[in-house]
Amino acid sequence: MLILHDNVESGNAYKARLLLSLMGKEYKCIQYDVVNGETRTDEFLKKYNKNGRIPVLEFEDGKCLAESNAIIYFLSLGTEYFPNDPWLQAKVMEWMCFEQYSHEPFVAVAKFILTMLPENTPRRAEIPTLHEKGYSALEIMENQLKENNWLVGDHISIADIALYAYTHKAPLGGFDMTRFPAINNWCIQIEALPNYIKMF
Amino acid sequence: MLILHDNVESGNAYKARLLLSLMGKEYKCIQYDVVNGETRTDEFLKKYNKNGRIPVLEFEDGKCLAESNAIIYFLSLGTEYFPNDPWLQAKVMEWMCFEQYSHEPFVAVAKFILTMLPENTPRRAEIPTLHEKGYSALEIMENQLKENNWLVGDHISIADIALYAYTHKAPLGGFDMTRFPAINNWCIQIEALPNYIKMF
Repeated sequence: MLILHDNVESGNAYKARLLLSLMGKEYKCIQYDVVNGETRTDEFLKKYNKNGRIPVLEFEDGKCLAESNAIIYFLSLGTEYFPNDPWLQAKVMEWMCFEQYSHEPFVAVAKFILTMLPENTPRRAEIPTLHEKGYSALEIMENQLKENNWLVGDHISIADIALYAYTHKAPLGGFDMTRFPAINNWCIQIEALPNYIKMF
Repeated sequence: MLILHDNVESGNAYKARLLLSLMGKEYKCIQYDVVNGETRTDEFLKKYNKNGRIPVLEFEDGKCLAESNAIIYFLSLGTEYFPNDPWLQAKVMEWMCFEQYSHEPFVAVAKFILTMLPENTPRRAEIPTLHEKGYSALEIMENQLKENNWLVGDHISIADIALYAYTHKAPLGGFDMTRFPAINNWCIQIEALPNYIKMF
């Protein structure tokens, strides 16, 4: 059976859990305490991911794949979650790169600071900048979703899965999502899918 | 003809220039002064990239694609720079995600601070952390390249192009590359390819 090396708080790991569930794939999860270094042990670095991060998807033959967007790419190949058309594929990649570089480092990190660190952490000073950049990213999504049901083409894809993970938990990072009605409708649409699972 | 919306200092734009050149594709470049906001004008945001960044590849029909790794993905489809095997494709994605999240934000940003900002910028305080994380990323590449000629499989791929861009300019970010002989050999190998072009 597939094994997902996982952490329940991680939106990156949730991308894999959500897609596996939507696709009706069986898998089991092994949880790691990321904050306390469980993904930085010699064994983890050697066997699962030299970069010391979850998620890692382990296959029946022992092969391992890291990086959430690489995992959902691989799982989606040949399925309805990855378009056949090369241009639409490129657009899926564009949104997934956007997620990794212009969305996650702000939207996810704000949530991390506000929910995982002590209330008096000096890192709270980062929040205004994280909000400024996070709101810019959410604005870009809102503009796309105002005129389209899905981020790419007229069907759900791994671009939606990748962006949904941290976007729907943005309120935990202090983001006011009432500003983004199109994003909210898109979230409702995803949450209505058969086999949808919650993050927590 | 293809138009690359470009900046000569950007390793991300260079990924596209290098691959276009290796593939023998004709294209023209339009340069933008990123530091002075030329990619944040209303026109740029509307026509080329809502996220206000280069590179953007503009096609003959006016369609635009942003995000360096999405651009090289699209260009490489059906060519020797993207493997046919799904597992190798997933490994290419894994390295490209690694580049965007665990390499570029440290290796490229150190170069940016040391070469593009004034000598007395307070951002120099970030350098020790950028070096620590950048060296970790380079270490991971070194370990891979010690035992393999290329990052994925036994052939060059867009994973190599993506990682080469900022890695070969790491000395400009203050990284001591004598620590990484396998990376240096890999760079020499890329620089010997027909139609190779320099970044500057």
